[in-house]
Amino acid sequence: VRKLKVGILGATGAVGQHLVLALEDHPWFEVSEVAASDKSAGFKYGARVNWRQAAPIPDACRNLIIKECVPELACDFVIASLSADVAKEVEYAFAQAGYPVISNSSYYRMHEAVPLVIPEINPDHIDAIPLQKSKEHFDKGYLVTNPNCTTIGLCFGLAPLDAQFGLEKVLVTTMQAISGAGYTGLHAVDIVDNIIPWISGEEAKVESEPKKILGRFDGRKISYGDFAISAQCNRVPVEDGHTICVSVALKQKPRLADLKECFRAFKGLPQEARFPTAPHNPIVVLEEDNRPQPKLDRNLGAGMTTAIGRVRACPILDYKFVILSHNLVRGAAGAALLNAELLYHKGYLRG
Amino acid sequence: VRKLKVGILGATGAVGQHLVLALEDHPWFEVSEVAASDKSAGFKYGARVNWRQAAPIPDACRNLIIKECVPELACDFVIASLSADVAKEVEYAFAQAGYPVISNSSYYRMHEAVPLVIPEINPDHIDAIPLQKSKEHFDKGYLVTNPNCTTIGLCFGLAPLDAQFGLEKVLVTTMQAISGAGYTGLHAVDIVDNIIPWISGEEAKVESEPKKILGRFDGRKISYGDFAISAQCNRVPVEDGHTICVSVALKQKPRLADLKECFRAFKGLPQEARFPTAPHNPIVVLEEDNRPQPKLDRNLGAGMTTAIGRVRACPILDYKFVILSHNLVRGAAGAALLNAELLYHKGYLRG
Amino acid sequence: VRKLKVGILGATGAVGQHLVLALEDHPWFEVSEVAASDKSAGFKYGARVNWRQAAPIPDACRNLIIKECVPELACDFVIASLSADVAKEVEYAFAQAGYPVISNSSYYRMHEAVPLVIPEINPDHIDAIPLQKSKEHFDKGYLVTNPNCTTIGLCFGLAPLDAQFGLEKVLVTTMQAISGAGYTGLHAVDIVDNIIPWISGEEAKVESEPKKILGRFDGRKISYGDFAISAQCNRVPVEDGHTICVSVALKQKPRLADLKECFRAFKGLPQEARFPTAPHNPIVVLEEDNRPQPKLDRNLGAGMTTAIGRVRACPILDYKFVILSHNLVRGAAGAALLNAELLYHKGYLRG
Amino acid sequence: VRKLKVGILGATGAVGQHLVLALEDHPWFEVSEVAASDKSAGFKYGARVNWRQAAPIPDACRNLIIKECVPELACDFVIASLSADVAKEVEYAFAQAGYPVISNSSYYRMHEAVPLVIPEINPDHIDAIPLQKSKEHFDKGYLVTNPNCTTIGLCFGLAPLDAQFGLEKVLVTTMQAISGAGYTGLHAVDIVDNIIPWISGEEAKVESEPKKILGRFDGRKISYGDFAISAQCNRVPVEDGHTICVSVALKQKPRLADLKECFRAFKGLPQEARFPTAPHNPIVVLEEDNRPQPKLDRNLGAGMTTAIGRVRACPILDYKFVILSHNLVRGAAGAALLNAELLYHKGYLRG
Repeated sequence: VRKLKVGILGATGAVGQHLVLALEDHPWFEVSEVAASDKSAGFKYGARVNWRQAAPIPDACRNLIIKECVPELACDFVIASLSADVAKEVEYAFAQAGYPVISNSSYYRMHEAVPLVIPEINPDHIDAIPLQKSKEHFDKGYLVTNPNCTTIGLCFGLAPLDAQFGLEKVLVTTMQAISGAGYTGLHAVDIVDNIIPWISGEEAKVESEPKKILGRFDGRKISYGDFAISAQCNRVPVEDGHTICVSVALKQKPRLADLKECFRAFKGLPQEARFPTAPHNPIVVLEEDNRPQPKLDRNLGAGMTTAIGRVRACPILDYKFVILSHNLVRGAAGAALLNAELLYHKGYLRG
Repeated sequence: VRKLKVGILGATGAVGQHLVLALEDHPWFEVSEVAASDKSAGFKYGARVNWRQAAPIPDACRNLIIKECVPELACDFVIASLSADVAKEVEYAFAQAGYPVISNSSYYRMHEAVPLVIPEINPDHIDAIPLQKSKEHFDKGYLVTNPNCTTIGLCFGLAPLDAQFGLEKVLVTTMQAISGAGYTGLHAVDIVDNIIPWISGEEAKVESEPKKILGRFDGRKISYGDFAISAQCNRVPVEDGHTICVSVALKQKPRLADLKECFRAFKGLPQEARFPTAPHNPIVVLEEDNRPQPKLDRNLGAGMTTAIGRVRACPILDYKFVILSHNLVRGAAGAALLNAELLYHKGYLRG
Repeated sequence: VRKLKVGILGATGAVGQHLVLALEDHPWFEVSEVAASDKSAGFKYGARVNWRQAAPIPDACRNLIIKECVPELACDFVIASLSADVAKEVEYAFAQAGYPVISNSSYYRMHEAVPLVIPEINPDHIDAIPLQKSKEHFDKGYLVTNPNCTTIGLCFGLAPLDAQFGLEKVLVTTMQAISGAGYTGLHAVDIVDNIIPWISGEEAKVESEPKKILGRFDGRKISYGDFAISAQCNRVPVEDGHTICVSVALKQKPRLADLKECFRAFKGLPQEARFPTAPHNPIVVLEEDNRPQPKLDRNLGAGMTTAIGRVRACPILDYKFVILSHNLVRGAAGAALLNAELLYHKGYLRG
Repeated sequence: VRKLKVGILGATGAVGQHLVLALEDHPWFEVSEVAASDKSAGFKYGARVNWRQAAPIPDACRNLIIKECVPELACDFVIASLSADVAKEVEYAFAQAGYPVISNSSYYRMHEAVPLVIPEINPDHIDAIPLQKSKEHFDKGYLVTNPNCTTIGLCFGLAPLDAQFGLEKVLVTTMQAISGAGYTGLHAVDIVDNIIPWISGEEAKVESEPKKILGRFDGRKISYGDFAISAQCNRVPVEDGHTICVSVALKQKPRLADLKECFRAFKGLPQEARFPTAPHNPIVVLEEDNRPQPKLDRNLGAGMTTAIGRVRACPILDYKFVILSHNLVRGAAGAALLNAELLYHKGYLRG
């Protein structure tokens, strides 16, 4: 069986580099096109990219010529990781031109007709694609998005509880890694020996995206989950891995052991159907007092597993715990790739 | 007027060093004795201390011989910063031997007969000293404590609100500096590029101490404030300055502007009576989106001012905001010294 | 006596901020003008500057209106800290317009007619000013520069040895702080958990500037010192303070004790004439094995003292040692200010 | 063919953990015993080890019972990574009891009868083993060591030059990662935002070990290379990877291009005989101005390749360049393992 051809939009960025690596030996897909900003277009990928990964540039991509982000790429679908302002027009243009667009960008996430998907949690939302196509008069193209890097880790702490006990309130404080700001997003003197208690637009995303993801698609529209979220987002001097302190109020009041068991038992379609990028366990519950820690736990499940620790009663809401998720893997490149695998599995991607 | 003589217990530690510096040109007090563990006793202070401050060792202390922590010091009172297990016996022995003991240690903070004092907030609690003396059969000695380094910053965010609007619930996530762990308290590989989501005993302190501080002393006993606190405490790779994300529910529902004004207007006895170590403003409210930051704001008011920023509505409780407080100054050495100034001002310290 | 009025060119940058602070209570000078790039001109200094110092903005400067860097400032002289490309035209224009220009910028340092001065080391080089004026047809204006932030610390390790024993060879490896790169000069992900073994243009400066500084002015021209320097310059994740490992070969072969004594005894005109910004000791020799350290020693002498430690024999050249110097104080703002004090003392600055 | 059984002495330390991982799928060897200090003995490895690696504990080791470091282990040889004081007696005891001891510890490195080996550089030194056995009256056991973590990287920069052009002088300044200090070797406050310009015993090792490694074994004794080394060793806040700035004087004077070609062409027995742990290229020469960087280059060749960059003329000696080597892989665990592979290949290890 021939592999589907992927075009990567934003291939020179941090997420693009992770995608290039993750697709190196992929059983279903192969990179056929790398696209980036105009100023990189025309160069060989290996000569132009500021490669910052531990593993070397895959040979299959090293000599690809970087293209502009215009819908003339030789590929079956694209995975996009672009800034929101660029994504707005570029991703729409690709969808209109007939490309399935699997996007890590933020622009269309909360758009009514666009599925915002974590394959373990709301895979059925992709069935909104036909409606989107008809509404937007797309032919073969469409848009599917994955959430913000913080939202994803958070949702793994919320979805199992919501499904089993009903979620009412979520109070979140995040400690986010510097790699989440992008390569040029932070000056060194701003974050060395420092915390920045604010990330532009982040709290709004974290307070809204989970409601859509944990919402219901009834065949006609995606309705939102009816729980409240309050978020405080901080940048901290950690390289990779977002740490999230959560307190939750639940409709039913489980015992502590049941809560942990609920996390441990959580699996989804990617595990059942053994998607290539799916971690064996989407969630690992750690029992040690001082875990999860980004340096020790961000690479669990090759960066695709969410670590949850310090699960205990909250004196104000019901329970509190700490979530750790790799922001560039599970929170970005791996999220988009797993969405691609979901779409392939469900027949939404074809050669 | 002659200055009162201070003995510093734990003079070689980080808090002790800050005390030595803060007392260098103090108008009321002067260091006459430095005491530390047995293995340091007998050495000259300047030769033995692992001095880690930007300013040099004050000449007045450089040649003092380090004494053991036994109540045979030539001083009018002692300021102690000892580990809890050592403090238990040493501080009691000093009080019993007739020394006023102003303690930064944790052991006696929650003891029923011991005032736990922040001079701007609950200065009247020191009037429990006579009861303590009679109960413990102390003659001239007594024990007064200041709170944990995180509690202090937090209380500056809570006390004004409690006084004006009534406090109901407090949800706290802390990001605490490495200097709070003590010189040998953290291995480098544990905290470089990392977060540790747990600090031994810290959450229990942060969830209990504020209730005593914001409680009422009615002349006979200190009753606790009737609000709930839930804390998640994290160690982060920042040198100095604890950052605290807070959400609060209040009995009355002020407007945002009133909340900020309440913080801004807050002053206490140290400001009114112009204590030497008192900051001009105990609280500064910052309006910039991305403040407070430890690197930029921890030295406000020479480290004695608490910075509060990002004051805004909370979708779950009423308001949320971020507090920053210098853990070694306002949170330890300055806290103890300001307590000493309060006691002096109120006539509890004499030559 | 009225104070001379200073205009600061580049007043919003890190060095400019240090200058504003250092001039707050200066006995001879006061800031009358702050100038910066066009896009800042017209704003109040306090409203525009991204203030990053521990001490607050001096009241005298807070409300100054930022001017453009054109020679229409109401001041007796200017201190400039500009990027080399901007300095080229701006500084020359000011000199031509009659302003003494005391520059921390790199552009004119190696220019034949421009003194490159460290007041403790080559104060007589300022007597090249009349020649410069006549050559450039300047009237009252002139240009005087201070060295690169690394050169300055290095020269304190070289000048005493050269004077007493004769310098032959200097091998240098630097570990330079991130603040030396300027506020926007380094991306966070480039330096957290990393070293960059290269700083644009730095090695050329370090290999050339000391030869001019340790050269001789014979009344007509500045000839260069005849020793060789080889430098390897690295950026390391340290906030402030450049650490420099040096090996030297000397013409005479002193004993180790004589070498240390030579450093310890070193004083210059700023010490003899007690310039306001002069440290009591320009050099402190540390005997502990593990010193100097940037965190512990960069603030010696309020940042104006150079720390030298680990003085010992070198198996290849004669001696090796480690120098530490505060790059923003002794290496920039303090260097320029001390040059201004030298010029004032020598009668080159007038009201 | 059955795999040889390895016992790891010091299996719970950082190097021990790397060994456990590196041996997970080894074609020639398998871990049969893990040994550590008395206080760990008796526990299961997976339950006791403070595991700090990105990959999980191999199943084959998780349930091994930790043994004491006494020569009663069921294995064909041991790899030891112990502190020097412990190594002295323990390693000797194992050799005496008949175990080949492949040691990463420092105690016996400079011992006359003990080979100090880097397989690409001086594999023939292992032929001193029979002499060692006869001298020490060992039966089947013997001691072979690998160098200090800094020495190894350095030697890859020296050995090719010495072989081709003759080495005369080596001036070295190191910037060493915190992981080299061991898990408990550094307090956090000592290295965050800091450099320590001294590492106990390190400079002596770096100045002596390369002379033995680049020395000649003539069948009777190992004579030392006749070149001089001067080292300045610094600890810097980098997680992994030692960066080394080197200047060399050579007997012959090659052109720059020949020097680089000499590095690039360098291969050794491990490459020729394709040892399992051998990198394809022992040395990679980087041409970018700002490389090598620890964060970007320490994992080249899975951590076994030495990166050399910034090769250029030195104004004092002949050439200078920057070396980067992974201190825990090429500098410790991988070094010992490659020695084991060399010994196996040469017939010095048998089942």
